[in-house]
This record gives sequence, C-alpha cells and structure tokens, in this order.
Amino acid sequence: MMTSPSLEDAQAVLAAQPFSAMMGTTLSQYDGEGVTLELDLKPEHLQQHGYVHGGVQCYLADNALTFAGGQRLGPAVLTAGVNLSYLRPASGERLIARASVQAATSRSAVTQVEISALKDGQEYVCSVGSGTISTMKK
Amino acid sequence: MMTSPSLEDAQAVLAAQPFSAMMGTTLSQYDGEGVTLELDLKPEHLQQHGYVHGGVQCYLADNALTFAGGQRLGPAVLTAGVNLSYLRPASGERLIARASVQAATSRSAVTQVEISALKDGQEYVCSVGSGTISTMKK
Amino acid sequence: MMTSPSLEDAQAVLAAQPFSAMMGTTLSQYDGEGVTLELDLKPEHLQQHGYVHGGVQCYLADNALTFAGGQRLGPAVLTAGVNLSYLRPASGERLIARASVQAATSRSAVTQVEISALKDGQEYVCSVGSGTISTMKK
Amino acid sequence: MMTSPSLEDAQAVLAAQPFSAMMGTTLSQYDGEGVTLELDLKPEHLQQHGYVHGGVQCYLADNALTFAGGQRLGPAVLTAGVNLSYLRPASGERLIARASVQAATSRSAVTQVEISALKDGQEYVCSVGSGTISTMKK
Repeated sequence: MMTSPSLEDAQAVLAAQPFSAMMGTTLSQYDGEGVTLELDLKPEHLQQHGYVHGGVQCYLADNALTFAGGQRLGPAVLTAGVNLSYLRPASGERLIARASVQAATSRSAVTQVEISALKDGQEYVCSVGSGTISTMKK
Repeated sequence: MMTSPSLEDAQAVLAAQPFSAMMGTTLSQYDGEGVTLELDLKPEHLQQHGYVHGGVQCYLADNALTFAGGQRLGPAVLTAGVNLSYLRPASGERLIARASVQAATSRSAVTQVEISALKDGQEYVCSVGSGTISTMKK
Repeated sequence: MMTSPSLEDAQAVLAAQPFSAMMGTTLSQYDGEGVTLELDLKPEHLQQHGYVHGGVQCYLADNALTFAGGQRLGPAVLTAGVNLSYLRPASGERLIARASVQAATSRSAVTQVEISALKDGQEYVCSVGSGTISTMKK
Repeated sequence: MMTSPSLEDAQAVLAAQPFSAMMGTTLSQYDGEGVTLELDLKPEHLQQHGYVHGGVQCYLADNALTFAGGQRLGPAVLTAGVNLSYLRPASGERLIARASVQAATSRSAVTQVEISALKDGQEYVCSVGSGTISTMKK
C-alpha cells in the first residue's frame, strides 16, 4: 500500500525545486487535512502597479495543488491542469496557499486551493482555484 | 475610441513588472493577431526532475493571456481567471507563449495560449490554456 | 441592503426555467450554507453506454453554481464561466448537486459544486467543479 | 493503427445517446478539421428570462468537446473535464457548436469549442470553452 510522504519528505522535494528555492517558498503543512505553502513577499514578486504578479499566485497555486494531490495519491503524480480565479489584488508581507483534496479516485484527484495575502497582520483571500492531479500511467 | 498600445508600449509595461524582469521574459509580438512572450530557460526555472517548473509555465501563460486581452480591450484590464492544461514536460533553451483572443465583447475577452518549448532547435507544445480578461468596472 | 431570496423564491425561479422543468430538477436547499439541486434520473438522461450523459451533469452543475452565487450576491447575477471535472461514471436513481461559495467579494463569487449519484441507496461522487458568478454591471 | 470513426459512425453514436435524442442535437461535421453539432432551439431549452439555459450550452459544449477528442484519439475516450465561458445571452433559431483539437498527445487532447446562436439568419458567439479528453487507461 502507498504511504503518503511525510512533511520532511515533502519539504525535501520543495527544496529540490530550483524555482521554488529562487522564489523563497516554504512548506508549513502537509498532512491528510491539506497542504500549506508560504511565500514571503519581496519587491521582485510584484507587477507594474505594485501588487503581487498574477504569475506568482499561479506558481504558488500550481505547486500547492500538486503537493495536495501527491499527499493523497503518492509522490509519483502528474498535474494535468490547473485553474485560478483572481478576486482581489494581493499585497502585504506574505502569500499563504492552502490546498486540499476536493474529491479523488485511486488514480486521480481534484484539488482546490485558496491563496491569501497577509497584510499588516490580517489575512484576506486573493484567489481560489483547482487542479487535476493523476498518478503516472504505467 | 480606444487605441491598442503599441509593441513598444507593451514592452514598457513588461519591463515595469519586477517579476518579469527577474524571470527574464521578453515580448516579441503584440498586434491584432496575438501576443508572443519568450523566456530563455535557466537552471532556476526548473523543478526537482530537471524539467521546467509548472509554475513557470503558469506565470508565462497568465502574462500572455493578460497581454492578449489588453491588446484587444485596452490597457486598463483585469484578469478574472486563467487555466492551463499540461501536455508534455518542458525542457530546452526557451519557452514561447503565443496568446490570442478566442472571443470577445466590448468589456471582456476569452484569450487562449499555447506554450511551446524550443529544444535543440525544435519546438514542441507543452501546455495550452485560456483566460478571462475584463475591462475595469467604472 | 440586498436580501437573499428565500427557498420559496428560488424554487419559483427554478420552476420558471422551462429547461429545468423538462429535466425534472428540484431545489431542496437554499441558504447561507449552500444550495442543493436534485434530479431523479430517467432513461432520457443517459448516453450511449447507459450512464448519465456528461451534459446532464454539466447542466446541473451550471445551475447549482449559479444558484449558489445568487444566494450570496442577490438574484441579479450573471454566470461568467463554469468548469466540471468528471471522476466516475454516474448511474442510479438520482443526481444530487451540492454547491456553495468558495470565496466572494461584493461583486463576484467563485462557487464550487460536487455532484453525487444515489445508487441502490448509496451516494458516490461523480464530478466536481466551480463557477464564477458576477453581479450585473450597472 | 487507430482509424477515426466516419461521420456516419459518429452520427450513430449521437443517435444512441438518449439525452441527445431528447434534446434534438444533430452532427453536421466530423473530420480532421473539427466537429459541428447543431441544436434547433425549442421553448423547453430556455431559462426564466427567455434565453437559452446555460446548461443547454454546457451540454452542447461537453458533447462537442468529447466528439472532437474522439475524432482525434479514437472512439474509446473519457472526458476528464470541461469549462465554458459565457459571453452573451443566447437566443434565436439554433445553437451551433464548433469544436476542434487545440493540442494533443497520443493519449490525451485539449479540445476547444465555440458556441454560436443563429438568430434572424445571423450568427453570433455566445460562449467558448475547452475540454480535456483522454484515451481509456488499459
């Protein structure tokens, strides 16, 4: 039977992603309840109006949705697709992406994510989305 | 009547995005036929298996879909949502995102994007997606 | 201030949809927790393999996602888009679509839906999805 | 090697779908360029404001996206997911859904669809969307 990777295993995967290392992403939760990725915001994460670039949110969503799928299905997964809806401009000290499994079979999972910005000590939701994650075909 | 920004205008917008500057994105087409963004791949764009991180593709898709919407609707647009489907792992020298308007009204556009990897001088499609772009509400 | 329609108001809206009347859809929940639509399955709801047609699930998802948005935002809403992921073939006596608000501003809501089939007295999830619902622009 | 079904084969599949028979859908194109489904509008296809019910468009989109995937990948396909963005209210004499393959591998295809309404002899686009279609896993 498949055993879900531990938080430490998952943090090692994240650390092995050069792009996540450059972004500065950390993994603070990885269990059956869901997955939480955090990103301390820096000036280079912004777009031309001073808000967090939508692509930064997309990256964080893609990563959180995939980790949530892998937590359920095992580490050998592929992300088939992701979507993200933007609700409010993001700014502040940190982005927090919380992802969990919305529904799953033994071979695929639909995962959902909510991205919040922590600004002046308050969180507000910036975007929400979902992803489709599959086990690798044999 | 609204006049579409020129290629130079749009390149200035891209240059004003700190995140795109860090990524190294360039804009090579911006006209009524569509928009092309290019990204020379570097080691920090990869994930743990040596392929381009899905989040890099998501970022590029988000940006190309939004530029394509702005080209049609004018520069004051908001991206309501994006989706991206992954078809093949991406690797090589460069990512190329080509986006265009699939359908539009005067206030919103559905744009589509195809992301290709240029590897050993050959292009292949890695992912495709779409976005919903709206003019800002008065 | 906007007052959410009551269950009876919403049932009257559903009854005023000729397509929903033909399908046989009923509304059994409509409150701040979410919305539940139910559809007793008949032979004309099936596809060529004897399962419920995906388009029937799409219809039910679209309707539940929109009702959930209207419950939050008020009755004058437009559905900007919907998506649905299929997990298992649907068959049995009844489809049940449960929708709720995933996140919202005063002008738009992202709603989510889970569609289950009731078969031999047991429910199982067939598909999940989400929608973007907006208030009408003035 | 897989041979794509003919137009007649595909029309027989459509005729074997009880739901499509009830709706009155016809298939007028099925080739390497794409797939066209048509639906003569009747009063029972409408919603409470007299426009075509969004769920009718969703059904037609789901069906066209799936047929377009099957045309490319062969008849044994599953639809993993669909999305549809609504641009304008639909009314008139007929809905026409044109779907084609946006990108594909040997095992999956992303297909796109445009739904137009024919009203007073003029066509206008009502909604556009995409779908992910896969071959059945062995």
